[in-house]
Amino acid sequence: MTMANFSTSETTAPANAPDAPPANSRERVSAFLKTLQDEICQKLAEVDGQSTFQEDSWVREEGGGGRSRVIKNGGIFEQGGVNFSEVWGKDLPPSILVQRPEATGHGFYATGTSMVLHPRNPYIPTVHLNYRYFEAGPVWWFGGGIDLTPYYPFAEDAKHFHQTLKAACDRHHSEYYPTFKLWCDEYFFLKHRQEPRGVGGIFFDYQDGRGKLYQGPNPQGPAAVHSDTIGIPAQRTWEDLFEFVQDAGRAFLPAYVPIIERRRGMAWGDRERHFQLYRRGRYVEFNLIYDRGTIFGLQTNGRTESILMSLPPMVRWEYSYAPEPGTPEAQLYEVFLKPQDWVNWQDA
Amino acid sequence: MTMANFSTSETTAPANAPDAPPANSRERVSAFLKTLQDEICQKLAEVDGQSTFQEDSWVREEGGGGRSRVIKNGGIFEQGGVNFSEVWGKDLPPSILVQRPEATGHGFYATGTSMVLHPRNPYIPTVHLNYRYFEAGPVWWFGGGIDLTPYYPFAEDAKHFHQTLKAACDRHHSEYYPTFKLWCDEYFFLKHRQEPRGVGGIFFDYQDGRGKLYQGPNPQGPAAVHSDTIGIPAQRTWEDLFEFVQDAGRAFLPAYVPIIERRRGMAWGDRERHFQLYRRGRYVEFNLIYDRGTIFGLQTNGRTESILMSLPPMVRWEYSYAPEPGTPEAQLYEVFLKPQDWVNWQDA
Repeated sequence: MTMANFSTSETTAPANAPDAPPANSRERVSAFLKTLQDEICQKLAEVDGQSTFQEDSWVREEGGGGRSRVIKNGGIFEQGGVNFSEVWGKDLPPSILVQRPEATGHGFYATGTSMVLHPRNPYIPTVHLNYRYFEAGPVWWFGGGIDLTPYYPFAEDAKHFHQTLKAACDRHHSEYYPTFKLWCDEYFFLKHRQEPRGVGGIFFDYQDGRGKLYQGPNPQGPAAVHSDTIGIPAQRTWEDLFEFVQDAGRAFLPAYVPIIERRRGMAWGDRERHFQLYRRGRYVEFNLIYDRGTIFGLQTNGRTESILMSLPPMVRWEYSYAPEPGTPEAQLYEVFLKPQDWVNWQDA
Repeated sequence: MTMANFSTSETTAPANAPDAPPANSRERVSAFLKTLQDEICQKLAEVDGQSTFQEDSWVREEGGGGRSRVIKNGGIFEQGGVNFSEVWGKDLPPSILVQRPEATGHGFYATGTSMVLHPRNPYIPTVHLNYRYFEAGPVWWFGGGIDLTPYYPFAEDAKHFHQTLKAACDRHHSEYYPTFKLWCDEYFFLKHRQEPRGVGGIFFDYQDGRGKLYQGPNPQGPAAVHSDTIGIPAQRTWEDLFEFVQDAGRAFLPAYVPIIERRRGMAWGDRERHFQLYRRGRYVEFNLIYDRGTIFGLQTNGRTESILMSLPPMVRWEYSYAPEPGTPEAQLYEVFLKPQDWVNWQDA
């Protein structure tokens, strides 16, 4: 922690108030989030081999802007978007003020990088990343996560993904992975289907170092995070949290790219494509009905094309579909669309 | 109005309380809504010529149930659902109680027929119908409407559709069509796109005869309904409103079937299909983000497969799409995705 950077005269934060961010907090977080966007786009374009990211820079009338990058019709990616934004304005929307009433009446600053990739090969999972940072009057917080949505069941992929994220978390706090893994299972859950979106990953919100890792419960979730992690002492400074977020963001490529490499050579046909398009419907349902980032964007007059970049290029709905027993599609529902301890997974 | 049917001793309703419904109100409305479902399915299967409706009857754990009918892979209909439901329970969801606080603490009864049809030929518009009836303690109301979503611009289709609905409205009250047409333009509006869903039709909610045709404004809408229809005296009895709803429901087939007949022979190709799938994305966005029926269903633990039967069988999203100037696709945006006086439309 660089004391010289403090924007107030406080040098230690009282237990019930967040540590003060450094004076250049916004520049540092947004610079990191832009670098993260750059690193991810560069590596993914290299892995794709056929297509590259096209960038649109945009300005938000009420304050701020961003740069949206889209890859289409690639060797691996049917469509994907990696979006950086940095916005500010007068009032946070009501959905956030409920969680952070101290922000009421203050202007806000928010920056984030978010990404969804929809591969063409149904054996390669869809993946999502989002890291974000907010400041509003006396409060600030980090949020975000990474989660994986496979179409076909490969336990080794889910295990590798979770182990990589756990390693990044463990370097910062032993309770991060168990808490944020459960939070992810709870958050990426389609209540109306009683179904998780995929095999999860990590998710957290409102991290300001004030000794509560978990803010919930989420009324849409399948289960509350186990109560002994709710109130554990986890006093963290702004610098601690920023370091953690950088590490968690940089865990994305090593968590995901090896899965692409393992699956890209697998041949697929109409059956797998058909099932992939059907399952993509759940992604649309989640993003439009529940996703905080989508709702925040639409409520704050964000750039609609950038917000809805997460929607898949081609999707199918089918009334009353159910997979045939004994198929890989049925196994996805029975095993992979249930919360599992992927880090310690052992094949039966 | 059959006085003998009254469930209370009141014979005239005070100006600020709704007319009392007859004792058999629920049976009469649900019987009509089932007949409407029957008549529509029978005629549409005949028009389709290749496929028929498959029925699923279902029971809702908390009370009630319904019958869902789906047509797939037909000569005309790529997919369509006509759903009847009749449900009851302890409490209406908060989104409705805000509009009808008198219902707080009372059990509710709700019945409705709703329908969305997605034709395969992009020259035939998608169409939606929903009529519903609620009772909850001291209050009851009718709601619903019919609206049209074309993919290609044919003014004569929009004009025919609106004229047919207007004729049904005009038989009951001269202010019904102008008010409910504007209400429809306001309701079926995608705020995040600043775009109507289609060419509209009629829509109304909370009709209980108490002298206000319009309940609003809808904060998502493009414009409030003109103020002189908001407070006009339109005292209506339960019987008046039920007759109007029956007429409005029966206007559906004559409003829509002639459009199918006019367009079914028109040849189309990849370009039209491509555009149709893209525009269907707006239907998904509307239904999952804004639609009251969808949100009511999901909030009351309705049958998800029946609620989401309205989603199209195949959909496409494309980042930053815009039609080429001078094309029919551009004309759709420029003329048909703006509120228009379709009843009096004159080609330039």
